[in-house]
Formats: sequence, structure tokens, C-alpha cells
Amino acid sequence: MRILELIDKKKSNQELTKQEIDWIVKEYTAGNIPDYQMSAFLMAVCFTDFSDEETYNLTVAMRDAGDIIDLSAIKGIKVDKHSSGGVGDKITPILLGVIGALDVPIAKMSGRGLGHTGGTIDKFECIPGFRADLSIDEFIENVNSVGVAIAEQTSDLAPADKKIYALRDVTGTVDSIPLIASSIMSKKLASGSDKIVLDVTVGSGAFMTNLEDARKLATKMVAIGNRFGKETIAVITNMDEPLGLSVGNAVEIAEVVRTLKGYGMPDVMEIVFTLGSYMIMLAGKANNAGEARILMETVISNGSAYNKFLEFVANQGGDISYVRNYDTLVQPSIIREVQSEESGYVHKINARIIGDSVKILGGGRDNIDDEIDPSVGIVINKKVSEQVKTGQILAFIYGNDKEKVDIAYRNVIDAYEIGAEPIERPKMILDIIK
Amino acid sequence: MRILELIDKKKSNQELTKQEIDWIVKEYTAGNIPDYQMSAFLMAVCFTDFSDEETYNLTVAMRDAGDIIDLSAIKGIKVDKHSSGGVGDKITPILLGVIGALDVPIAKMSGRGLGHTGGTIDKFECIPGFRADLSIDEFIENVNSVGVAIAEQTSDLAPADKKIYALRDVTGTVDSIPLIASSIMSKKLASGSDKIVLDVTVGSGAFMTNLEDARKLATKMVAIGNRFGKETIAVITNMDEPLGLSVGNAVEIAEVVRTLKGYGMPDVMEIVFTLGSYMIMLAGKANNAGEARILMETVISNGSAYNKFLEFVANQGGDISYVRNYDTLVQPSIIREVQSEESGYVHKINARIIGDSVKILGGGRDNIDDEIDPSVGIVINKKVSEQVKTGQILAFIYGNDKEKVDIAYRNVIDAYEIGAEPIERPKMILDIIK
Repeated sequence: MRILELIDKKKSNQELTKQEIDWIVKEYTAGNIPDYQMSAFLMAVCFTDFSDEETYNLTVAMRDAGDIIDLSAIKGIKVDKHSSGGVGDKITPILLGVIGALDVPIAKMSGRGLGHTGGTIDKFECIPGFRADLSIDEFIENVNSVGVAIAEQTSDLAPADKKIYALRDVTGTVDSIPLIASSIMSKKLASGSDKIVLDVTVGSGAFMTNLEDARKLATKMVAIGNRFGKETIAVITNMDEPLGLSVGNAVEIAEVVRTLKGYGMPDVMEIVFTLGSYMIMLAGKANNAGEARILMETVISNGSAYNKFLEFVANQGGDISYVRNYDTLVQPSIIREVQSEESGYVHKINARIIGDSVKILGGGRDNIDDEIDPSVGIVINKKVSEQVKTGQILAFIYGNDKEKVDIAYRNVIDAYEIGAEPIERPKMILDIIK
Repeated sequence: MRILELIDKKKSNQELTKQEIDWIVKEYTAGNIPDYQMSAFLMAVCFTDFSDEETYNLTVAMRDAGDIIDLSAIKGIKVDKHSSGGVGDKITPILLGVIGALDVPIAKMSGRGLGHTGGTIDKFECIPGFRADLSIDEFIENVNSVGVAIAEQTSDLAPADKKIYALRDVTGTVDSIPLIASSIMSKKLASGSDKIVLDVTVGSGAFMTNLEDARKLATKMVAIGNRFGKETIAVITNMDEPLGLSVGNAVEIAEVVRTLKGYGMPDVMEIVFTLGSYMIMLAGKANNAGEARILMETVISNGSAYNKFLEFVANQGGDISYVRNYDTLVQPSIIREVQSEESGYVHKINARIIGDSVKILGGGRDNIDDEIDPSVGIVINKKVSEQVKTGQILAFIYGNDKEKVDIAYRNVIDAYEIGAEPIERPKMILDIIK
């Protein structure tokens, strides 16, 4: 087999065989195909697309290129939850408390944030002492003892995906639906859960900016999971304005704690309840969404979701005094109010601009080795559909550098679109793909 | 400027500015853009195409990245001739004799063969003593003394094109019309002639396999040349069966000599007369094609084209006793007849297969550093439209390795398509683009 022939084959839009895809993944991971040929191949895929068969074969090839985690030592049905990323997306930490309190085992593998979306591990690491670099044995033991654990993906999990993603990131070849689907699913299939709930985000703060693409991505991922024998459901959620109130790291953990105490924002709760219902039903703990929702409302209102969160954080070394007094987590040197320059109704908050501004403030990273500043962020005061008058506060900027705060200030003003007409609160759940 | 933004811009089919194209060429040539980003960029160009403006800007940027040859020390109007390559394409050596005999100065820069098409320099180097590695001063002096010189392109001529072409060759990004046009024209504009005649080949033995693409390529190149102030004419020629009788190196020089002596094949002569007419008219030596053709017929029949060829070969160090006795050039250890397995009329001879077979015999190269065997080749005995009976000779294979000759034998049988119905001799001149 020669890579040049396979590039030409893909370029002329012919379907690659399983053997050809296995060969590319194996040889590229082994360093036998140079980056310049792989990037040309990936760009050809961006233009010609991959069939379902090719996407499945790529996913399995990337899964099989590395370690496959065996979670059979964990009792019960393990349900994984994955989000395709968003601005202010703190759904995973909330669900760890809520679902964990319902005795559904959650063994969550997670990554770090890149670009305008934050990473769950980065957020947890705001809590002093918290560690996510668990060995597989620790990871399994933690789930068996407290029911919930989160671990950073090791470099041995789907290393082919890691290497290919790193190349895509610097060659303009990220935005291919089959490549995104196989990248996500190769890690999900390698990380050992029995069933999978996917949160496919769509809107200005997500990788998918239109519903049609999000549906395509969701459909592909669900097909891959089910074909592999892992029941998979995708919920397509609205990520057009930042989710909830806070965007950043410590500010998001603070919002997680408030949510677990029963003070969640409506948009956040709608997604928590929908994703949570499917997780609970897939785990066999409820027969329908109504039952599941009552279970979730109960563990939030009786404090057991919050207590499960504390237990799990403590179990991974986190100092829970910071969780109890979450204001101590968030101590930037500058807090600046952003006042509205006009009156009307908030029609739009561009989540991408908000996410990029948090990155500028120091809360995100461009490269995987960049350090992040956990204390910075943006806290929304006026959500989409709310009325606002000139001079009222739209948002707060938390920063540690005046110049960066100035840039973020202008960005936040630009991110808000204020119109004369009242509008409805946006729908959060846009579709369900089973 | 960042390459990733320019990749994205091209990927989303937006036009790049002159500044952006200059920057890419400059930074890639300087080694500041890695190959893996450049190859992704080039693949995006293959899919989205380049506008005329972008193609022109790329051409000029690649021309300006290296040396630009000043031929003003040569008296008269210098007309360059370039072929986009073909199997058995020996038109350039023939025109050096014919046009040289008419006092049109020809300062020809040429390259080596790659893939299934041969290179003019490789062919000349079959003649013992011949050298094409002339300095610019020698090159100019040779043209001023004998009227004709051929020199190998130095690595300082359009080095950006050289580097980009080398990457395209290994990343499946060769077949882009604007990239081919700018690659050819950057070298033509850098090599200093006043006017340009292009032979754009089309068919199984050419890079362009259909007339529509050949017209597009020709139109783009003519537009670039004219816009740059160098009058340019393209002749689109048929390259579906091998040109003339011989394919190889020494065998082609032998055919060149026979042709200059007045024994040229009709397909070869049709192209020689058409391209030659335009060269003569552009040089101001004839007012119309009829006049130009009479001039050419005269210098062939009175021996002055052949004598000019001898003079020019001797002037570049070639031992002309080998030209006079050209059979001494061609001495393979094996000459094998390929006999027809059926009766009928030759409908097709796949030039690509013939070209590839000569490469297999050792007469071509895959990599620029490969050595070539000048004595091998394939000599056609039955051209398209000729009648053939079972057992008659279709072609001769000249080789030095029995196994390779066996492979070439099967290939030649496969390359011939013999049908029951008589067919016309193919038209050689398919279009003229001015």
C-alpha cells in the first residue's frame, strides 16, 4: 500500500477499505507516514467526506491503536457522558453529583480545554489538592468506593487520535464531521463504559454552528456507538449564548456548587435534566424521563447530590472547604462591571466572543502546554431575552491584568446584541438522536 | 499573517490577496512554513481552485523568489518553447535544428524527466560528451555564436517552484490547473525569453487527459504570459498515442536525426510545423503560417536544419560522430518484437502505459536522483489507424534486463487496442489559444 495512492483515491472521492484505513492509522501512528502526506490526506477528507463505513473503520482503527480500558471490575451499568464542548459548559461536574447520588456508577475520562471551550479537568483543578492523574486501578477503586471518579485521559488512550488531532489542529482540518465523530468516539469506545450519552452542542459557542451539521455529527456518532454494541443517545443542545452565568474555571465550579444546592439557572437545569434522564434510563434506574426527573429533583432538594459531589471531590484529594466556601475559589485582582450602552432586550450573546475573551484574560489555552489562570472569567448578568436599560450591568469581568480586562470589556459589549422587541427565552434541547 | 488563517481562507473558497500569496511563497521557501501546513494548503487549492488573479500572483511570486535571467545580451527576438510533456515528445530537439537554421535565437532552459514523460536534457545526454550544465555566460555566448543553446535549469531559477513542486509530487497535489500553470509560467518568466510558444499536450500520455482541462490550462498560461508583457501562444496537441515512433532516450535522438534529415513521421511533422510557425512568426521572420512552413520545409530539405543541429551539439561538447551514425547510440542487449495477437486496425495505443513501461525498462525515473539507462526504449511499428494482422510486429522493446522486458511486453500488448473497423489517423492539433 502506498499513501500517495490512498491520497489520490480519497481525492477522487472513492471509498477506502477497512484495510486501507487500518494501514493509514497504523503507519501514521508509527511515524512511517510523514505529516505532510497525512495533512494532505486529511484535507482531502475535509473536502470529499467519509462514508459511514469509513468513519466507523477509522474510529475502530484509532481505538485499537492504544490501550483499551477494562471497567468490568466496576459493578453496575457504566454510562459515559460526553459533550462536544461549549462556552460555560459545566454540565459534567453537575451530573457527577446528581447521577452519582442515584447510585449510577460514573467513570469519567476527560480532557483539557483547547481554544474557546474550557476543559472539565481544568475546572476541577481550581480546587486545591484535587488530582485527576489517576492510575486505572485508582480510577476503578474510586468508582467502586464513592460511585464517581474523573480521570485525565492518559496518552496511551487512543494515541492515534491524539497524534492525528494535533496535526489537524495546525493544518486547518478540524472541521470535518466524520473526523470529529471518529475522534470523539474512538476515545469513548476505548474508555470502557457500557453506554454513552452525547451532548452535541450547536451555536456560536460550539464547534458545530448550525443544527444540520450537529444532526449529522450526532447521527454519525450514535451509529458508531450502536454498531459497536454500546447503546448511544445524542442530545443536541443550544450553545448560542454562554451556558448558565459563568465562563471560566473557578467561576464555573462556584456555579456548579450553587446549582447542586438547588440554585441552577433554567438553561443549565434543562440540559442537566435531559442528559441526566437518559443516563438514568440507560443505567436501568428509571423507566421513563418523568421518573428520572423526579429522582434528580429529589437528590438536589434533599442535599444528597451536593453531598455526593463533596465526597467525590474529597476522594480525589480536593480540599472541600473551598467547595463549601466557593467564594474563596474566585479571587481575581480586578472585577469590572460591563454596563449596557443601550436599552432594550438581549437578543444575542455571542458565546464564541465570550469564550475567546476568557482565553485572552488567561483562562484558556492556545497550546496544550499553556498555563491557565483559574481565577479569571466572565460572569453574565443579563441572559438572552432579559430586559436591560442603559447603564445596567450586562456582565462582570474577572481579571488580573488591566489591559486584558480592557480588551475583554470591548469584546463583551460587542458580544451583546440588544434589540427593541421582546424575545422568548431560547429553547435548549434542539433534538434527540437515538 | 498566519498560515492557518490562510488555509482556512482558501478552504472556505475566498480569494487570497497578492500580499498573502507573496507571504506564503516567501515564508515557505525560507523554511518558515512547515511542509505539513503547505501540503494542507495545496490540497485546499486543488479542491477550491485559484482565480486568474491568484494564479498570476502566485506565478510572479515564484518567479521573483529566485534568479531572473537577463538575455538582453542576445541579439534578436528570443522565443521560448515549452511542452507540458508527453510520451515520445521529441519536438524540442527537432525545433532547435529547424528554427535555429532560420536565424531565430533559441535560448532553451530545460528540465529532466519525471514519471512517465521523458526530459529533453536526458535525451541529449545520450550523446557522449554533451553537456547542459552551462553557466549563464556560456549559455548566452553559445546562443550568440551558433544561435541555439540548451541549458539545464539551475536550482536558483524559481527555487520556490522547485520546492513546492517537490512537495506536490509526494502529496497528491500535482493535478491542479492553476498550480500547473503557475509552476510552468514562473520558470518561463524567469528564464528571460521575449515571447513564448506553449505546447499543451492532452491525452493518455499527458498530464491533461481531456481537452477541456487542456484548454483551461492553456488559457491560464497565455493570460499570465500576455499580462506579464510576453506575447504567448498555446497550441493544444494530441498526446493520446506516443508521438512518432520512439519512446526512450537514445531511440528518440535517433528519430530526431531522421526527422531533421527529412524522414519525420506525419504526427511529429504536424506538430513541428505548427509550433515552428508560431515561433517564426513571433520572431518576426514570417508574416503567416504558410510562409513559415515553406521556410521550415526548405531548411529541412536542403540539410541546413540537420547541419545546425550538428553545429549546436558540437558546440555543447557532443561527439557528433554518434549523431551522424545514430545507430551506434542505441545498443541495448535485448531487442524483442511484440507480435499482434489479433487482426484489425489499431484503434488506440495507451501512451501512459508505454511511457510507464519505458520507465520500468530503466529509461525514466521516479525520483530526481535516479540514474537512467539511455539505451532502452520502445519503438512503435504500428501507429493508430494502421492495419495489422495476427503475428505482425506492433512494436520493438529495447532492454537490458529480461524480466523487465517481459513486463514491458505484456504492457505493450495491453496498451494496444485493436478493432475491426478502419479508423482515421488522429488529428494532432486540437486548438490554438492566443
